[in-house]
Parts: sequence; structure tokens; C-alpha cells
Amino acid sequence: MNKTEMHHLLMAAKARKGMSWDELGEAVGKGSVWVASACYGMNSATPEVAARICEVLGVDEEVASALTVFPKKTWDQTIPQDPMIYRLYEIVGVYGDTLKDVIQEKFGDGIMSAIDFSMHVDKVEDPKGDRVRVTLNGKFLPYRAW
Amino acid sequence: MNKTEMHHLLMAAKARKGMSWDELGEAVGKGSVWVASACYGMNSATPEVAARICEVLGVDEEVASALTVFPKKTWDQTIPQDPMIYRLYEIVGVYGDTLKDVIQEKFGDGIMSAIDFSMHVDKVEDPKGDRVRVTLNGKFLPYRAW
Amino acid sequence: MNKTEMHHLLMAAKARKGMSWDELGEAVGKGSVWVASACYGMNSATPEVAARICEVLGVDEEVASALTVFPKKTWDQTIPQDPMIYRLYEIVGVYGDTLKDVIQEKFGDGIMSAIDFSMHVDKVEDPKGDRVRVTLNGKFLPYRAW
Amino acid sequence: MNKTEMHHLLMAAKARKGMSWDELGEAVGKGSVWVASACYGMNSATPEVAARICEVLGVDEEVASALTVFPKKTWDQTIPQDPMIYRLYEIVGVYGDTLKDVIQEKFGDGIMSAIDFSMHVDKVEDPKGDRVRVTLNGKFLPYRAW
Amino acid sequence: MNKTEMHHLLMAAKARKGMSWDELGEAVGKGSVWVASACYGMNSATPEVAARICEVLGVDEEVASALTVFPKKTWDQTIPQDPMIYRLYEIVGVYGDTLKDVIQEKFGDGIMSAIDFSMHVDKVEDPKGDRVRVTLNGKFLPYRAW
Amino acid sequence: MNKTEMHHLLMAAKARKGMSWDELGEAVGKGSVWVASACYGMNSATPEVAARICEVLGVDEEVASALTVFPKKTWDQTIPQDPMIYRLYEIVGVYGDTLKDVIQEKFGDGIMSAIDFSMHVDKVEDPKGDRVRVTLNGKFLPYRAW
Amino acid sequence: MNKTEMHHLLMAAKARKGMSWDELGEAVGKGSVWVASACYGMNSATPEVAARICEVLGVDEEVASALTVFPKKTWDQTIPQDPMIYRLYEIVGVYGDTLKDVIQEKFGDGIMSAIDFSMHVDKVEDPKGDRVRVTLNGKFLPYRAW
Amino acid sequence: MNKTEMHHLLMAAKARKGMSWDELGEAVGKGSVWVASACYGMNSATPEVAARICEVLGVDEEVASALTVFPKKTWDQTIPQDPMIYRLYEIVGVYGDTLKDVIQEKFGDGIMSAIDFSMHVDKVEDPKGDRVRVTLNGKFLPYRAW
Amino acid sequence: MNKTEMHHLLMAAKARKGMSWDELGEAVGKGSVWVASACYGMNSATPEVAARICEVLGVDEEVASALTVFPKKTWDQTIPQDPMIYRLYEIVGVYGDTLKDVIQEKFGDGIMSAIDFSMHVDKVEDPKGDRVRVTLNGKFLPYRAW
Amino acid sequence: MNKTEMHHLLMAAKARKGMSWDELGEAVGKGSVWVASACYGMNSATPEVAARICEVLGVDEEVASALTVFPKKTWDQTIPQDPMIYRLYEIVGVYGDTLKDVIQEKFGDGIMSAIDFSMHVDKVEDPKGDRVRVTLNGKFLPYRAW
Repeated sequence: MNKTEMHHLLMAAKARKGMSWDELGEAVGKGSVWVASACYGMNSATPEVAARICEVLGVDEEVASALTVFPKKTWDQTIPQDPMIYRLYEIVGVYGDTLKDVIQEKFGDGIMSAIDFSMHVDKVEDPKGDRVRVTLNGKFLPYRAW
Repeated sequence: MNKTEMHHLLMAAKARKGMSWDELGEAVGKGSVWVASACYGMNSATPEVAARICEVLGVDEEVASALTVFPKKTWDQTIPQDPMIYRLYEIVGVYGDTLKDVIQEKFGDGIMSAIDFSMHVDKVEDPKGDRVRVTLNGKFLPYRAW
Repeated sequence: MNKTEMHHLLMAAKARKGMSWDELGEAVGKGSVWVASACYGMNSATPEVAARICEVLGVDEEVASALTVFPKKTWDQTIPQDPMIYRLYEIVGVYGDTLKDVIQEKFGDGIMSAIDFSMHVDKVEDPKGDRVRVTLNGKFLPYRAW
Repeated sequence: MNKTEMHHLLMAAKARKGMSWDELGEAVGKGSVWVASACYGMNSATPEVAARICEVLGVDEEVASALTVFPKKTWDQTIPQDPMIYRLYEIVGVYGDTLKDVIQEKFGDGIMSAIDFSMHVDKVEDPKGDRVRVTLNGKFLPYRAW
Repeated sequence: MNKTEMHHLLMAAKARKGMSWDELGEAVGKGSVWVASACYGMNSATPEVAARICEVLGVDEEVASALTVFPKKTWDQTIPQDPMIYRLYEIVGVYGDTLKDVIQEKFGDGIMSAIDFSMHVDKVEDPKGDRVRVTLNGKFLPYRAW
Repeated sequence: MNKTEMHHLLMAAKARKGMSWDELGEAVGKGSVWVASACYGMNSATPEVAARICEVLGVDEEVASALTVFPKKTWDQTIPQDPMIYRLYEIVGVYGDTLKDVIQEKFGDGIMSAIDFSMHVDKVEDPKGDRVRVTLNGKFLPYRAW
Repeated sequence: MNKTEMHHLLMAAKARKGMSWDELGEAVGKGSVWVASACYGMNSATPEVAARICEVLGVDEEVASALTVFPKKTWDQTIPQDPMIYRLYEIVGVYGDTLKDVIQEKFGDGIMSAIDFSMHVDKVEDPKGDRVRVTLNGKFLPYRAW
Repeated sequence: MNKTEMHHLLMAAKARKGMSWDELGEAVGKGSVWVASACYGMNSATPEVAARICEVLGVDEEVASALTVFPKKTWDQTIPQDPMIYRLYEIVGVYGDTLKDVIQEKFGDGIMSAIDFSMHVDKVEDPKGDRVRVTLNGKFLPYRAW
Repeated sequence: MNKTEMHHLLMAAKARKGMSWDELGEAVGKGSVWVASACYGMNSATPEVAARICEVLGVDEEVASALTVFPKKTWDQTIPQDPMIYRLYEIVGVYGDTLKDVIQEKFGDGIMSAIDFSMHVDKVEDPKGDRVRVTLNGKFLPYRAW
Repeated sequence: MNKTEMHHLLMAAKARKGMSWDELGEAVGKGSVWVASACYGMNSATPEVAARICEVLGVDEEVASALTVFPKKTWDQTIPQDPMIYRLYEIVGVYGDTLKDVIQEKFGDGIMSAIDFSMHVDKVEDPKGDRVRVTLNGKFLPYRAW
């Protein structure tokens, strides 16, 4: 079973159970963004977590096995088109140099890791219109001379 | 004076004053990411804020005028190459579909605005290596039928 | 049922019924451009509107369900080739900077939303050759400093 | 004098005069979008209109001459990046097939001309936030067999 | 039946009948280039012409129906590779600016329509090697100010 | 003197003399499209023709020398943007496969040369709007087995 | 039968017969590169040669018929990746301007035809490592003024 | 002195001397294609050969020094546009798979080197039109397992 | 059997046997990177090595035959996206000019062969986090004048 | 002083001193690849190391200051063209999936860091032709769930 088939089975099961990503995350003891990314085939789960996801969603072991496979992470569009995703790309384009400068001023020459990394999404209620808060948290990795 | 020339004058003045973006932001009553983006020519300032930035950094009025110009926001590389910026692009690629799903499950069909939007950078100290926390905060905009 | 299959079923049913987009829009209480975009899989409908579309066109509930799914909005050609669509792209290319300037002069620094947005098409009869009138109507979103 | 130099001189003169595009359009008897596009070097003016623009803005004849040159219409970014312009591109991408269908259903097989064409921008005041209305008006051109 | 399937059925029938495009064009009262383009799915035919094509080639009514569908005109290669087609592209590249200048000098600021347009191919016999003559004939469309 | 400088000097001289391409072509005994292409730097002239062009336009010998240089033929935009030139590109895209078939049916497997080639532009007066006629004439080159 | 299917049948038959391209070329009286290109679907054969190829390889007449079809010559990768083919591309990149100059100095302004063209591959034995010799032979085509 | 400046000085000197590439090659004891590529900045010469080139062409030592610099070999157009160079690219596209097969059948799995490599251009006189012969000669490099 | 099918059969067999690439390499007397590349279809094996691989993994002879086929080496993404592979691409981008200079200073004008080439991967244990060591070893090939 | 100017001054000074990268690396107590990358503007040096480099090469303090600036790491060609650098790109293309598999089998799901990273180049003498050995050494970074 490849990651695409796994993804469709997990999405169908999640819909059947009527669970949200928050509920699934809580049920398996992980953040909702991470658990969604694993179900989208963009992260691998340990055998324990994979088994727990499948148990909660009521899908069989072959899916659990597929969840543990180390994924080849690729995406279709080098410039994303869906407006929700494009806005994130636009933020990287508009604020890329700004963020590099602000971060490197605080930390020195280096980068924010996208591997030793976590991300959360929250809903911030606001009378003028609710707001989406996305929090990125990555280890700072300094360049090292040799 | 165009935005590029303005940027170089502001960066030189900031270096001369030895101020950080946090200090400049605080001095003008704005967030450090926003103030940096204005100095990078990617946002326009009101005349009051522009004047305050120039006063703090000791540059002349022509720079303040350039800060108030509505920028044409463009970037050179459709796929960024600098590792610090590329990692942000990679996060959009790897987690784009995941974020779309998690956000739209919480909010309905729509997007996170990149216009009615703010962003902050914090340093999270950690004995295993300090971490970079980037917080995005954008108004949720629902699609509306007509 | 994915959006592509849904689209083909709706187009076939619309042809069978011999209805125009204007008639379908009127029948469901929505604009013809919006209702067409929903049938093309580029907008989601509320359950009520989806049910009404399917009732009018005589297709089954599974199609209604597909109409309510939040779409991933993508298009095949970054530069469109069909002459009807290319001309729209050309207008954006030729008049993009002009429109930015005219709009921002009237409204300030910001954008016209493509989310809080509507669009209509009218036929303007003219003895020298009928004319197409396309009206775009989007909320102005000002950039906000933070 | 090429179109770029002409553009900068006209923009500077317009700023000096403190005129809006609406005012300039009215003063020369043309729509504000068209007059802006001519000043941006994307349309040519007749000698009379060119002379009138230069008279109103107080610039010399060489600029008027440059306004009458037939432009080579090109743009830098095949996918625009500035958020104001990108949103227009996004509308073409999301609604391209929809518009082709709605227009061709009303008019037959053919296109909306981008040459025999006009465009206007209006501000629609709205308590929930003002709205931008862009009206495109192009002659319908039917394909003809031969 | 989509345009691709229609195309294959028409090509097979034409080969069975042993007719040339000239013969088919003459039989249906249209030019050979136009009739070929319709059979390639790049133009739509009126019901009468479509019926006549199918009668001459001995294919059934479903094909005639497919011939009347308004096509979405797209092509696979933005830079064509087949040497016969590439040479045409090369001519546009090498002579594009030249043609623009020669045409606009004769006609004023505007374009040659590719919609109100016809094209013919002739064989010009020549003892040093026969020559291909391609004649393009398009309505001149002047830009109009508004 | 490179081809770009040569081009600008020739265009300025032609404007001073108030000659059209037709008049210049006639004066030097060549077609107007060819003579324009040589002045645009896209074809080389023999020393005699180059001298004649410069004599007619009243420019000096260095320009004649530049006209005889074998050009490196390149163009800026792989997909042209100017509407006049784009329409030619669109014709190649829409009718490329059609032309290949019609030509190869008449001539056998091979191509129309873009080197042993000529092109003319005529104005065809028409009460419904004048028409542009572009005639391409290239030697047929058959593929040869070896 | 399309060219792809034809190619696979011919390759399988050639492997069964254990013939090299040299042997097949000799058996049909053609060069090995040409005969290989015809079997790869990149050139068409006359009915006689096609019949002979199929007789030698023991495949049926439908394959011979496919060999006579005028091919649409296209390739997948605008920059080839396979190292054997990439090296040829690199030679064109590194030596393109050099070859243009050397050839045009010898022949005048014009090109080497890729249509009236032949190519051979030889093995040159060498104690320091055998060498590949590829000989291109194309008719010189001079540009002609008109 | 960079390679571009060196190239222009060498071309000017060669024109002054009225030497052909063949004559220059002979004078320095190298092939004409190689010597041209060195003067185009695409190969480095040994100090002796560089000195000899400069002596023959009558240019100073700084040019000789530039000729010995190891070049960074790059080219502007990933798909060449000049017709002379494009035809070479087209040959790689059309015959790439064919050449790979013919060469690897003769030599085994491996490539023709583009480094341990030479190339010659000859004029083959022919009453039906002279022909260009380009001979590529590269060492065969077998893949080696490890 | 093509290389893709071969690859899947070999991966499944390797998983069934529970062998690592190191173990498989050792069992067949080859390096683990080479043996993996052959199983990924990116190198060909001799009949002996192919037979040995299939014997060790318990797959049939048709797979061995597929292993001996000379591969067409291509990859999907000109800029890789998977983070593990992208980091290698980034190293080439960041250090490409540096490596060219350091290598050519040591060896003269030439390149490191990617054909006469081997590569090994080792795990270097480190209390601060284990390290990956990749060793590339390629024959130096000097450019030769001719 | 920007990184480009700094680079040219350092290269000129290094040539004047007649030092190799190995000698410069040794003189400042760093590896030759790292020191070259800093002088190419692709890594920043600490003030101490920067001062030492400038002292050894005899350039002034402004250069040392430029060496300490955190670089924006970018490269011109997304697919490199220079043969020396292209071969590295080709290795990533051909062996990318292989390396991902071999490394992740040894280390688990994760990547080799290109930040906490070092690289060395050695000359391996060999009677059949000297060999280039490039050793990459990067910290393994495991993906972490959250």
C-alpha cells in the first residue's frame, strides 16, 4: 500500500468517525498538525503511534504499516495555486529577507530547522472576524566553520 | 529616492546606531518584523511612523518620504535559495495541504489573510539548543457565494 | 466522488435539461458565474444550495455531497492558452500596474480581495457588434501595520 | 525619449500637480484607467490627447511625442507577485474555465476582445468595508470558418 | 465523445476514404486548413457543416455532435519541437518585431486578429525545389482609447 | 558598432527621412519585410545592399558595415507578450498540427524552410474593416534517408 | 499501431534475432543511425524500406505500415538528463557559438541543415581507450534576401 | 581582464589581421575549432599556446594571461535560438536516444566524453549544394561498478 | 520487465529477506551504494553480479535480466524537493564554485568524472549526534587541446 | 563593500601571494574548502578568522569586515552548466534516491544537515589517472513528531 492509498483510507475513516484533527491528535497523544501531516503521507509514525491512529480510526494493520514508511516528501506545484496555500507562499516571498534578518540578528548566522520542528494552528476569536494563528517552532542551527 | 536606495540608507543608519530591530520597533511603537519589512521596502509606513523611524535612526526626510510610498512587492527567486529562506518555502511545500485541511476544518472554506496579517519572531531558550518561534496571525476570510 | 466526476455529471445533466447558467442561477437564487464555478468544482456550496442545484438538474445526492466539499483550487496552465482565457491573462499583464495605481490611489495601500468577491457577465447589445461586460467586485483590504 | 523615461516624467509631474487619475482623465476627456495606462507606456495616445495630457501636467513636447509612440507591450513577471496584481491573476486562474463557459453560452464560440476594450474602476462604499468594482468591456469576436 | 476521440475517428475515416484535406474541404465548401483544424479539434463547426463532414467521411452522428462543441484550444509544447512546427515558431521569434513594425506602419496601432482570421496553404512548383506558401489573413483591430 | 546601436541609428534616420518600409525596400530593390528585418539586426545584407540602405537613409559607413555582420538571431521572450506578436504565436499553437498535416499531405515528409524563405505583408481593404495579409514562402525540404 | 508500440515490437524482434544496428542497416541498405532512428519512430521509411526492415526482423505488415507514418518528432526533456545524451547537449552549449563562427566563416551567413542531413557513428580503437566518432553531415543553407 | 573583454580584443585583432580560424589554428599548431573555442573563452590554453596566439594576432601579454585562465563554461540559452545553433540542439533532441543506443551497442554501458574530446569542421563540396561536416571524437568512458 | 517493475520486485524481496544494503553489497561483493543504485535502476550489472543479486534475494531470472539492461538515467525533479535530497542539491549550489576552484587548483583545468566514479556512505558516531559521511571518488579528467 | 567586491579583492591578493587554498587554510587554521567558501562569499567568518585571512593575504580591514557579514547564499543557475559543477548535480540526480535509502536505512527517518556540515577535497594519486576524493560530513537530523 503506497502513501496515496493510505491517505485516502485514513481520510475516509476519519470522515466516518466524524473526528476532527484535534480529536485525533489528542487521542494519539500528538499535535493535530503533525497527525494530519502523517495521514497526508508527509511524515512517518513510529509503529506504536501508527497502530494507535489505526485503532482509533478503525482501519486495518496494513494502513499502520504504510504510516511507518519513511516518505519521499514532494509537492506538485513549485508555486502553489490554491489561495489558502498561495498566501503562505506569498508570506515567504514578501517577508523572506525580513525574517532572515530578524532571526539572524537574534541568533547569529544560521537557520531555523525545518526538521527539528513543530507547528500548531489556533483559532483566535475576534469580534471583527476570527483569526488564524500558525506557530512555527524550529531549532536554530548555527553554521559552523571547519 | 526608490525603495532600494532607501533600504541601503536605513540599514547603514541602523548599523551606525547599533540598534536591533527589536529596539527600533519599540522606539517607534511597532513590531520588529513589521518595522524591518518597512525598512526592506516591503510595507509602507504612515507619515507619522516614517518620520519617527527616520528621527530615531537620524536620516533625513527624503527617506521618510520613501517609506510612505506604496511598494510594488516582488521577490527575485520563485524558489528561494538562501537556506534560511528555503526552509520556510520547504515548510509550505511539505505542510501546505496539511495546513489547508487543519485550518479549513476549524474555520470553514476560506483562507488566512496575508494582508490583514501580523508576524512575530521569538527566541525560545532551550538547553538542547535555542529555538526560533515564528508566529503568523491572519484574519480568516470565508469564501462567500453571490 | 471527486470534483472532476461531479463536474461531468452536472454538465451532462445541465445539457439534458437544456438550462443556461442564468436559468440555473436564478433557479437556485445565485449568480450565474458563481453557480457555474461551483459546478466546475472551483467553489463549495452550502448543503442547501447544493441540494437545490441537484434537485433542479435532477442528479442524485452524492453529487450534492461533492458540491459541498471545500475545493483545492488549481489550474493547469500558468499561462493560459485558450484564446478566450488568454485575453483575460493579457489584460492582467498589460493593465496590472495601471490597475494597482488607480485602485491604490482611490483606496490607499492594500488590495482587492479575490475571496470576498463576486463577478457578473452581461451581454451589451451594440449595432457595431455585441460586447461582453465582466464586472469584478471585491472588498478592499488595507495593509495594516502591527 | 523611451517609454520608461516618459513614465517617470509624467509620474513626477502628476505628483507635483497633485492630480488624481480621475482628475487627469476628466481634464483630457478620457477614462482614468486608459489615461493611466498611456502614462504607464502601455497604450499610445493620439497627438491631440498627448498634447492635452502634457499641457495639463505641465511637461514639454518631447513627452507628448513619446506618448504617441506605439508601445511594445510587455510585462516582467509571467506570474505576477505583487499581491494586488496577483489577485487578478488568481481570478483568471480560478474562474477562467467558468468565464469561458458563461460567455460562450451567451455569445457563441468566440472571445472577448482585449483590443476593442475598455475598463473602469469604481469605489463602492459599504459599511462592512468599501469595495473595488472593476468593469471590463470588450467586443465579442466570433470565430469564423473560411 | 471528446475532441481527441473524435479526431481519431475522423482521421481513420479520412484514411479509409483516401481523401485529401483539399478534397474534403471542397466537398464541404470550406478551406482545407479550416476543415483540418476542425477535425483536429481546434475549431467548432456549425451543425450543417459538421453533418456534411460526417456524411462525406461516412462516420456517425455522435462525431458530428463532437464537431460542434466549442473547443478549449490548448497545445502541449510552449516551444514546439517537431521541426515542421518549430520553423513556424522560429519565424515568429526572428521576425516578430519586424512584422509588428511593418504592420503597424501600414495600419496604425493595433493587431492582426487571430479570431477573425483565415489561412491557406499552396504548393508553388519551382524547378529548384517546390515551395510552400502559407497565407495568413486577419482583420486589423485598432486599439481604441476610452 | 553592434546591431543594437545600428538599429537605433537606422530607425532615427528613417524617421528623419519620413520613409516607410515599403519606400525603403523599393529604394534598395528589396522587399519591405526583409529590409526591416535587416535594420532590426535579424538578417545580414551584402555590402552593396548595406551601402545602398545607408546612402538612402543618409547614415555613415560604419552603419553599413554593421549591416553586413552575420547576426546571432535571438529574441527575449520564449512566449511573446506584445499582443500583435502573441497572436502570431497563438496561430502557431492553435494551427501547428493542422499545418504540419496539410503541408506534409501535399509535399511528403519534410518541412518548410525558414532559411530559404521570404515573407510579405499586404493591406487588403475591406468595408467591414481592413485586413492584414501575411504571406510566408519557404522552400520545401524533404527528409532524406541515408 | 502508434510509433511507441511499433518501437517496442521492433526492439523485441531485433533482440530475438540478435542483430546489431550495423547488421540491420546493412541488410536493408541504409546507415545504422538512420535505421535506428526509424525504429525509434523519429524518421519515416519508404514502403520498400519499411517492408525490408520487417522482413529481416520477422515482424508483420502492420509494423511496416507504422514505419511509413510521418512522425511528430518530440522529446521529453528540454535539457536531457541521461549522461550519454547530456554530454551531446553540453557540447552544443559549450561549442555552439564557436561552431557558428567557424562554419559561417567557411560558408557565409546560413546554417547546416538538420533535414538534408546524415549521421554516422564509428568506433576508433585506441590503446589509451577506444574513442567514439560521430560524424554529422548537413547541407549548407544560405540565408537569402528577398 | 575577464574572458569577455579578452574575446572582444581577440576578435578585433583577428579581423585586423584578416586571418581565418583555419589559418590561426595552423599558425599555432592547433585545430581551428579548438583555437576558436579558446578565443571565445570556452577553453584554456597553456602559456605557450596562449603566447603564440597573441604573437600571431599582435595583441599584448595581458590577453595571453586571460587565455590561460580556467574558464567557467556557461551559456545563455538553455534552448538555443539562433537557427545555426538550434539545429544542433534539434539533432540532439531528435537523435539522442538513437545515438545512445547505437553507441552503447558498440561500446557497452558508458558515455562519449565531452572532456577528452575533439571536434573538426570541414566543407564538403557538392554540386547540389556544399555540405558541412562536423566530426566529434570523444573517448568512450565505461561505467564501472564498485 | 522494465526497470520500475524490477525495482519494486527487488525492494519487496529485500524487505522479505530483512537484508540491509550493506549486507546485500557484501553478499555480492560490491559496495552498498552501487548495489542500491543498480536495484533502483540507475546502473546496469554484469550478468554474473545480476545473477548473484537475484540468488541472494530469491527472485527469478527475469529480474536478473532486467538488472543487466543499460539504463536511461533520468530523474523527475530538476530541483529535488525531498529534504534529504534537496540538502545535497543545496550543497552543490552553495559550494559549486568553491569546489571547482579547490579541485582545479589541485589538478589543473578539468573535471571529476561522474562515470569513472564511486561513492560510499558511513555512519560516524558522535556523542553530540551521529554524523553522515558521504565519500565521492571520481577520476580526474583533464581538458585536452587538439 | 559587498561580498562580490570582497571576493575579487581576496582572489587578487591570493594570486599575488601565490598561495593555494590548502596553504591559506593551514595559515588560518581552517579547512581549505571552508576558507575558499568564505572568500567566495558563501560563508561568514568570525572577526578573528577574518582578520587572520586578511593579515595573511595582506588586504585591509574593510575586507575583513565584509568577511564577517552573514551572506545571502544564492547561485545563478538552478541547473549548473559548467561541466565540473554539472557533474556534481548529475550525481545528485542519478544517486539521490539511492543515497536517501542507504542513509535512512542506517540512521532512520531524517536528513544529513547541510548546515552542521564540513567538506574536504583530496587528491588520490593513481597510476591510471589521479582521482578526486570529496568527503561530505553532516550531522544526521532525525525528524521528530510533536
